[in-house]
Amino acid sequence: MSSDSPSGEDKLIARFFGPVATDPGALGLTDDAAFIKPPAGCEMVLKTDAIVGGIHFFPEDPPSAVAQKALRVNLSDLAAKGAKPLGFLVSLALPKEIDDAWLTGFASGLREDAAAYKCPLFGGDTVRSPGPIMVSVATFGSVPEGRMVRRSTAKPGDHVFVTGTIGDAVLGLGLRQGASWPLDAAQREHLLSRYLLPRPRNALAQAVLDYASAAMDVSDGLAGDLAKLCRVSVVSADIDAARVPLSDAAKAVIAQDASQLAPALSGGDDYEILCTVPPGNIDRFRVAAMAAKTAVTDIGVIVGGGGARFRKADGTMLVFERAAFSHF
Amino acid sequence: MSSDSPSGEDKLIARFFGPVATDPGALGLTDDAAFIKPPAGCEMVLKTDAIVGGIHFFPEDPPSAVAQKALRVNLSDLAAKGAKPLGFLVSLALPKEIDDAWLTGFASGLREDAAAYKCPLFGGDTVRSPGPIMVSVATFGSVPEGRMVRRSTAKPGDHVFVTGTIGDAVLGLGLRQGASWPLDAAQREHLLSRYLLPRPRNALAQAVLDYASAAMDVSDGLAGDLAKLCRVSVVSADIDAARVPLSDAAKAVIAQDASQLAPALSGGDDYEILCTVPPGNIDRFRVAAMAAKTAVTDIGVIVGGGGARFRKADGTMLVFERAAFSHF
Repeated sequence: MSSDSPSGEDKLIARFFGPVATDPGALGLTDDAAFIKPPAGCEMVLKTDAIVGGIHFFPEDPPSAVAQKALRVNLSDLAAKGAKPLGFLVSLALPKEIDDAWLTGFASGLREDAAAYKCPLFGGDTVRSPGPIMVSVATFGSVPEGRMVRRSTAKPGDHVFVTGTIGDAVLGLGLRQGASWPLDAAQREHLLSRYLLPRPRNALAQAVLDYASAAMDVSDGLAGDLAKLCRVSVVSADIDAARVPLSDAAKAVIAQDASQLAPALSGGDDYEILCTVPPGNIDRFRVAAMAAKTAVTDIGVIVGGGGARFRKADGTMLVFERAAFSHF
Repeated sequence: MSSDSPSGEDKLIARFFGPVATDPGALGLTDDAAFIKPPAGCEMVLKTDAIVGGIHFFPEDPPSAVAQKALRVNLSDLAAKGAKPLGFLVSLALPKEIDDAWLTGFASGLREDAAAYKCPLFGGDTVRSPGPIMVSVATFGSVPEGRMVRRSTAKPGDHVFVTGTIGDAVLGLGLRQGASWPLDAAQREHLLSRYLLPRPRNALAQAVLDYASAAMDVSDGLAGDLAKLCRVSVVSADIDAARVPLSDAAKAVIAQDASQLAPALSGGDDYEILCTVPPGNIDRFRVAAMAAKTAVTDIGVIVGGGGARFRKADGTMLVFERAAFSHF
């Protein structure tokens, strides 16, 4: 009888994912479950997000990038909540075509990011699927008790900050889908890489925790995500569209085709942090961001009322066809 | 502009899943993430498991049963680890055909089980998929610090116990796939319902925590799962096949077709608890199980060596074609 040799799934997990499970609580993925305790005085922050081949990434994307995208879209939420990563679980649905080479690449991407973000694997599940590749990650981080930074706590007078640059990923997706903006190689590469691989702002998490009044990550487009924050905070935002930080590549696209500004500001996949900072905290927030080597830009101010307005340089309002990306 | 009205996904989440998110830490699913703290002196137990339409359930199964199966296969692991449920995250991939009626059913199943198992929703993600329905759940429970019941700690001399009955689900699957065993209506219904809807043994978690030396849930078949436990505990098991608890329905099938015994003992989807109990704890374990209204059966004993042997009444060994179910 064969019952003392591991099953296919156990072998697969041990071989590919065991090395990513570096925390003692993961028991080397040899048990049904894992255990973890948040650091003293801290509570756990929980988040799950999934990506699907053909929807959130291209099936031909490098498997290491698929793994990293799946993990990073979750890490981005932890960063925006002021939380330090503690670990993650991954659930993987794989079509029959997936071979060892793909899994090796996927696991190496996961291992690299688990180390870089100090976020080890605590458990996983792999299932066969007749559908596309789907990677569902659940992450958990820690924040001092009662201090998770919310969406709902922005106050009139707070300044609105975003990290990095906005719109690169949606323009990168445009390039993948055949847009032919005349860009130089470096500009193309910048936009493509920003779509392929989010760069979550976990370096800024402590500054967000210390100085922001409210925060969220920008995953469904700046305009729509800011509107969500305003809605639950029951405030409005006056945004100066010209101050929204754009990369040279995004500027080059928009210089050639001004109609790309609104999609850039309302497209998805930025994985930047959007946060509100009370006036008294702004200087310290800027210093902490500099120490964290993370660019932050003041794009406007929270006011009373509801909703968010993007004011153009000429004083008129920018109109978005679709404020936030949603598959539904 | 439409940016102050919720997006499709946000509306869907608020409408269908908000009512399942009863813990204050879930923030009514209006934030990027949720927070939780394990009870004093406890740590968290983490587990993720996914189910896919056409693989783990039939696409035409009632949506409430799909939701409950997805949650219960995870709750079963918590029970086997001696952990109390604290909550769960769900990630849902939905084909276009899914309508409001399906989602209403799904959410009502989830709500019912979240209440019954005291395991509220802490967050979710819904994505469109061109593939089948996939439901990935990540659960977290609590155990007193350092006391999660492992697979690897069975010792020679411990008795091997299983809860409930074994083999019903795989025989129920056989019926779904057209097997024509002559059973009465109640027997058919019993086997079918055991495949459709696991009945995880969370009522026994405290007894497992208090008295078992090792435990795991039986999800991939008793024979293979016991072999896994033996492998990581570096022990062997002598099992009396005739003592493995079978339902009347399973007995009726096997009485008509003796070749169904081995598949029943090595098929999947039982979601019973398999645990080892040191001789000095057996009486108290039985009393606690009775108090928890959970049937437990002593099926054999742990011995030195490696692997698990199922001895038939005539002293010969039962041979399994395939010891553990695996999609790989």
